[in-house]
Amino acid sequence: MVVVLKNEATQEQLDNLIGWLEEQKVLVHISKGEYHTILGLVGNTTAIDTDLIEGLEIVESVKRISEPFKNANRKFHPEDSVIDCSGIKIGGGNFAIIAGPCSVESEAQVLEIATKVKASGASMLRGGAFKPRTSPYDFQGLRAEGIELLLEAKKETGMPIVTEIMSAHHLPLFENVDVIQVGARNMQNFELLKELGRTSKPILLKRGLANTLKELLMSAEYIMAGGNENIILCERGIRTFETYTRNTLDLSAVPMLKELSHLPVVIDPSHASGIARLVKPMALAAAAAGADGLMIEVHNDPQHALCDGPQSLTPEQFDDVAKRVFAIRKTISELD
Amino acid sequence: MVVVLKNEATQEQLDNLIGWLEEQKVLVHISKGEYHTILGLVGNTTAIDTDLIEGLEIVESVKRISEPFKNANRKFHPEDSVIDCSGIKIGGGNFAIIAGPCSVESEAQVLEIATKVKASGASMLRGGAFKPRTSPYDFQGLRAEGIELLLEAKKETGMPIVTEIMSAHHLPLFENVDVIQVGARNMQNFELLKELGRTSKPILLKRGLANTLKELLMSAEYIMAGGNENIILCERGIRTFETYTRNTLDLSAVPMLKELSHLPVVIDPSHASGIARLVKPMALAAAAAGADGLMIEVHNDPQHALCDGPQSLTPEQFDDVAKRVFAIRKTISELD
Amino acid sequence: MVVVLKNEATQEQLDNLIGWLEEQKVLVHISKGEYHTILGLVGNTTAIDTDLIEGLEIVESVKRISEPFKNANRKFHPEDSVIDCSGIKIGGGNFAIIAGPCSVESEAQVLEIATKVKASGASMLRGGAFKPRTSPYDFQGLRAEGIELLLEAKKETGMPIVTEIMSAHHLPLFENVDVIQVGARNMQNFELLKELGRTSKPILLKRGLANTLKELLMSAEYIMAGGNENIILCERGIRTFETYTRNTLDLSAVPMLKELSHLPVVIDPSHASGIARLVKPMALAAAAAGADGLMIEVHNDPQHALCDGPQSLTPEQFDDVAKRVFAIRKTISELD
Amino acid sequence: MVVVLKNEATQEQLDNLIGWLEEQKVLVHISKGEYHTILGLVGNTTAIDTDLIEGLEIVESVKRISEPFKNANRKFHPEDSVIDCSGIKIGGGNFAIIAGPCSVESEAQVLEIATKVKASGASMLRGGAFKPRTSPYDFQGLRAEGIELLLEAKKETGMPIVTEIMSAHHLPLFENVDVIQVGARNMQNFELLKELGRTSKPILLKRGLANTLKELLMSAEYIMAGGNENIILCERGIRTFETYTRNTLDLSAVPMLKELSHLPVVIDPSHASGIARLVKPMALAAAAAGADGLMIEVHNDPQHALCDGPQSLTPEQFDDVAKRVFAIRKTISELD
Repeated sequence: MVVVLKNEATQEQLDNLIGWLEEQKVLVHISKGEYHTILGLVGNTTAIDTDLIEGLEIVESVKRISEPFKNANRKFHPEDSVIDCSGIKIGGGNFAIIAGPCSVESEAQVLEIATKVKASGASMLRGGAFKPRTSPYDFQGLRAEGIELLLEAKKETGMPIVTEIMSAHHLPLFENVDVIQVGARNMQNFELLKELGRTSKPILLKRGLANTLKELLMSAEYIMAGGNENIILCERGIRTFETYTRNTLDLSAVPMLKELSHLPVVIDPSHASGIARLVKPMALAAAAAGADGLMIEVHNDPQHALCDGPQSLTPEQFDDVAKRVFAIRKTISELD
Repeated sequence: MVVVLKNEATQEQLDNLIGWLEEQKVLVHISKGEYHTILGLVGNTTAIDTDLIEGLEIVESVKRISEPFKNANRKFHPEDSVIDCSGIKIGGGNFAIIAGPCSVESEAQVLEIATKVKASGASMLRGGAFKPRTSPYDFQGLRAEGIELLLEAKKETGMPIVTEIMSAHHLPLFENVDVIQVGARNMQNFELLKELGRTSKPILLKRGLANTLKELLMSAEYIMAGGNENIILCERGIRTFETYTRNTLDLSAVPMLKELSHLPVVIDPSHASGIARLVKPMALAAAAAGADGLMIEVHNDPQHALCDGPQSLTPEQFDDVAKRVFAIRKTISELD
Repeated sequence: MVVVLKNEATQEQLDNLIGWLEEQKVLVHISKGEYHTILGLVGNTTAIDTDLIEGLEIVESVKRISEPFKNANRKFHPEDSVIDCSGIKIGGGNFAIIAGPCSVESEAQVLEIATKVKASGASMLRGGAFKPRTSPYDFQGLRAEGIELLLEAKKETGMPIVTEIMSAHHLPLFENVDVIQVGARNMQNFELLKELGRTSKPILLKRGLANTLKELLMSAEYIMAGGNENIILCERGIRTFETYTRNTLDLSAVPMLKELSHLPVVIDPSHASGIARLVKPMALAAAAAGADGLMIEVHNDPQHALCDGPQSLTPEQFDDVAKRVFAIRKTISELD
Repeated sequence: MVVVLKNEATQEQLDNLIGWLEEQKVLVHISKGEYHTILGLVGNTTAIDTDLIEGLEIVESVKRISEPFKNANRKFHPEDSVIDCSGIKIGGGNFAIIAGPCSVESEAQVLEIATKVKASGASMLRGGAFKPRTSPYDFQGLRAEGIELLLEAKKETGMPIVTEIMSAHHLPLFENVDVIQVGARNMQNFELLKELGRTSKPILLKRGLANTLKELLMSAEYIMAGGNENIILCERGIRTFETYTRNTLDLSAVPMLKELSHLPVVIDPSHASGIARLVKPMALAAAAAGADGLMIEVHNDPQHALCDGPQSLTPEQFDDVAKRVFAIRKTISELD
């Protein structure tokens, strides 16, 4: 950590600050310049609250050198984490496609999609039971009943299921769910993260629309600090000024997160653009960039598609995407 | 609502869509052009899910003309709402300053700050008991004990209190709290919003870091749809590319929100910039722009300020800001 | 074009507006609703200034349905454009890698890099002679002398050269340059664009840091309206709130631009992230997403790399990237 | 300047870097930690190219402590600069309103508006002769003829005139213009900035849509480094994700720029929101925040307003705004 002091700091103020810092068990090196004095803090600075130091009148700015996340940090855990999702592995070279409908609607719908995406190579089934919607007047999901329908499809197909939680209240309903998803809007619902830290289930943690990669890792750290280290990170597009696409997929998150952390990184190209015809190129790009998995929305019946979002593929389109994704992964791995 | 169709839509597809729309009880006007066909939908379109229509293969784009919020909409409620916070009114010409410490730390701290800010003209006391922190290793607030300390200060000073809720689980602890704050990170925690819709307490709803004004109003709508119409909107800075300030205060939110909605709008200049010396100019600007209130962080002891953020004022600085805010409001009202 | 009118518009105001619109040779369809009246304009609306209509007191909002670009629009030019860069083709299935140093420094440097990148499969040579730098105190490039050195390397290697122009004043110096680059900061330097419209040279037009895809196409339109249709579009990262990477590469620009326009699209992964170790994954992703080319910075001597930016690859690293890029393109094309 | 080194740096690499840095005449202090080594550089670091150091393999990150601008820096020039615009002073307590039409259209139009805004308290006349338009098909301004019309109005009213330059080619046309405006899209047209540095005219430099305050000051530095210190900074809204307003006015730029620099700061509320009815609240807010001036668009005839943008006020509305702006300034100054 580097602390830059204002020039008008008195020697007494300086001594007080250094004394306090040394009590926190960090070493302090001083560089005095004409316009600034710089303090270099070395040692374990994770527990030092930067806001607290920035609040001091004599301090101009504070900059962390070490990242403030510890459990999620690759520096302290150099090997890739491999997350076991009821038998399906993800991370450390294991690649998985999670596919399924935006919203769970009926037993027939879920089962048909599950069967088809499994045949195309998907290894996990996704489906929305609790749906976060911007408007209170939009369809909010089948909720508990939706989870039941997913569990039926799991029984039939053997695919582990992934579905979103919106409140810690609902945790008992997720007992047989294989992977619990935290959506973008709840990425900093810290009370929910703490509760999930007390479970042992894999958590698929989506990046918030306006959250930095550091904040995503700090939210993972909330869950890990509670004891649950089974985290899958997911990039699903961030909010920018561009309006042709709903969000802007930040694919550099893949190599960047994998450099900073040992956790696996999955890309959701469906939510990222909000446009079905962009899912294919973005899925291929994600595979080429080294993602550990993909999460793709698939709907079953384009003729009666009134209830499907503009970002879903048909099973046939999904089959085509999956084939190419696997081919790209094979090409890359043969060159390694 | 305007629906733009692709040129390749067949007459049969067009008829199907129009038939379905008419079942939803909206009138459809058709304009056929060389490259596009435009459907103008008139009537009550609030309940129509735009995602659903955008998902159709023959649809190029959908644009709402009427805003999708109803209870919060000024069109259906032309007069300003006045929110009664245990006797302190806000909105419709009633202006209130909410002041207090970032975090509640001790009885002495809260009481001293409360007494001083009241003397300077603040009418409500704020204080963080549950603190949303990016890092699990940072101070998380005194939680239940913090609320107790605020209630003590309320008893002593008679000031209504405002404090943040982070989970619907904690609602019983807020029984004697006068105004419940929903923080920026929970603005789209829809399950929490629904629970708050079942209470009758005033809710101070903060805009999320990357949320549009429309989304803020839709979140207000979630609470109002549940029956609680006591909402105070709060702008506290949005996330942009600028780095000198922590966030960018969007002051045009004041006139814009007041045009779109009848709900009162409060500005939080402390969180917006994250820099104490910007609080004064931004508070004055907010008053000049027509805000219905201000929310300002004040700490008590700069000598031992190690636990205060870089965005808090001293009581003396607050007194100076308040004096000027009241003077600007007086000047403007005399010219009306 | 759709014009939404306010409810308070009088019949006379409405008639005036419709009369004026019909003089502009567009057909007007009217849909009257309870709260709004919607005008659907069909015909050639390209020349209608939306600002002008939005300025009318009776108008609530205006939305274009047809895109305001014509020459760049795929609707009016369905086949891919192929741009011939002194023999090297780009677009319509032709893929090209443009590689070379950030700044031209010496004859030896340029020639060594050119020879090496050509051997690895690059087909054009890039190099900065005029350098746009945020600070007036940073190195501004060798300017005219830099172009001379590039021309030397072109003579030796036969590679067409690409270099950036910063002022129309300098056009005479670019007489033997094969492709003129317009940098992100000059994307809306409209006077420069008009001058380039009077030349016949291929223009590599980079997207501005905060420009939408529509604005990029409108800037292409400026050049094309002047008679020069040889435009190559280039995405090089946009400005967002994320700070780990210098910019955020918006890869969805590739399929989106190719849907909207017939012009070829090139990706610059070096400037997008500003980090050399992200160039490889982002270059592979761009190839997988269907880009028509790549623009990559390569420096020659890591031992004396003091003058190279943090975003350049060594020739060896470039060779590895190029090999994988070609392999991915082959894999994808075999599946088509 | 602080340089953070990677742990794997060898002693030899470290010695080489330190040797090179000392040749640049800066003092180097070393702090060695378990995971990082930090170099604190003190002395005149303005001329050190951070990109150059960041490019070194052993360097993890570089952070400037001193700002890289010198002429524009308040640290080296503590008193406010006062810019003399042909007799009208701005800065250092001198406040000026610049008003006039978006585009110059006719002698009668300019003269009528000039006369009226002068009567309401405006001290300078603005008007667009060269108009930067996103589309090549939109009205590009009267160009040279527009400047003539402004000069006519100046002769009649005695008001200094402000108008935008789009290319250094046009400088001869600006000989009798009092203040040359550089628009947002040309803020980083460095060749133009260099040319303006060779003149002695006051330059009104607008912040780019996606430019940081630091970049704005670096662009001012370009002009100042050439010898012209007559710069007026102008904030006119930045690009964010919000869509109700055209841009987001960043009013905190006023106190922030005035802290960093001695140059005067003017606010353009017309372009910031793009909505006439937001001009009044934002102009009042700017005055309250301490701006040194305002730049406001005024049109003359709302009945035939087809050529005016949605962001212009009528002279009557402008009169009302000006009256309140002066009242707020009086109220604040009486409390100082």
